[in-house]
Amino acid sequence: MTGAIRINHVAVVVEDVHVALGFWRDALGLVCQHIEHNESESVDIAFLPVGEGEIELIAPFTEDSGVAKYLAKKGSGLHHICLEVDDIAAVMTRILASGAEMINDAPKTRPDGTRYAFVHPKSTGGVLLELYEVAR
Amino acid sequence: MTGAIRINHVAVVVEDVHVALGFWRDALGLVCQHIEHNESESVDIAFLPVGEGEIELIAPFTEDSGVAKYLAKKGSGLHHICLEVDDIAAVMTRILASGAEMINDAPKTRPDGTRYAFVHPKSTGGVLLELYEVAR
Repeated sequence: MTGAIRINHVAVVVEDVHVALGFWRDALGLVCQHIEHNESESVDIAFLPVGEGEIELIAPFTEDSGVAKYLAKKGSGLHHICLEVDDIAAVMTRILASGAEMINDAPKTRPDGTRYAFVHPKSTGGVLLELYEVAR
Repeated sequence: MTGAIRINHVAVVVEDVHVALGFWRDALGLVCQHIEHNESESVDIAFLPVGEGEIELIAPFTEDSGVAKYLAKKGSGLHHICLEVDDIAAVMTRILASGAEMINDAPKTRPDGTRYAFVHPKSTGGVLLELYEVAR
């Protein structure tokens, strides 16, 4: 069975990336590899590698993005997890066949070639779950 | 600087472990290594390894445990993440020195020798963060 390879990342929504780094980098001791100013999603993202995965700290810089609305409604905290799979199409086929619901009917592709799609939280027990197939 | 080695686990609180396994094991394709009936915490825990970490599905079996109250208040979903560190005492010293707040002032020890402690969500940007130092 085609399965998940690793926890690619855990995403945390915060008010301010630099304030959050005061804990995650300066107090806890993680390394902040880089901070991305993502115009398409209207968020800043700090990437902090941990073993084979990473923690992502995500802060909206506008008030009308999806992440900004999530933050306003739910407050800061765990937002989603991303599992890397070797064949996202096969995994999505199996998920849909089980009756579970995907947010994206087909994988989207990032500029670096990574294909991704989200599973709806109502099918996972309340978890926003992202699937990644990383370009090799 | 003493840092984190890996994401040890991501914990998801659910109503019923077996219902949740219908997605995480049967549809997604993870392997359920075992299910623990944990009397001390009044929860069932399903362990699903992914790469160097695992997903834990946690369901309370009484209504008065901490997890049961969390579920009643917040609903099912992501509950906490656990980062493994090589020296929990050193990491806790640095966290406390930064002004961040621990839930446990000193590490507790599991029967298998793993030492653990939780960082308070108000210091992490809303994330309940567990630290593990695994016995070698």
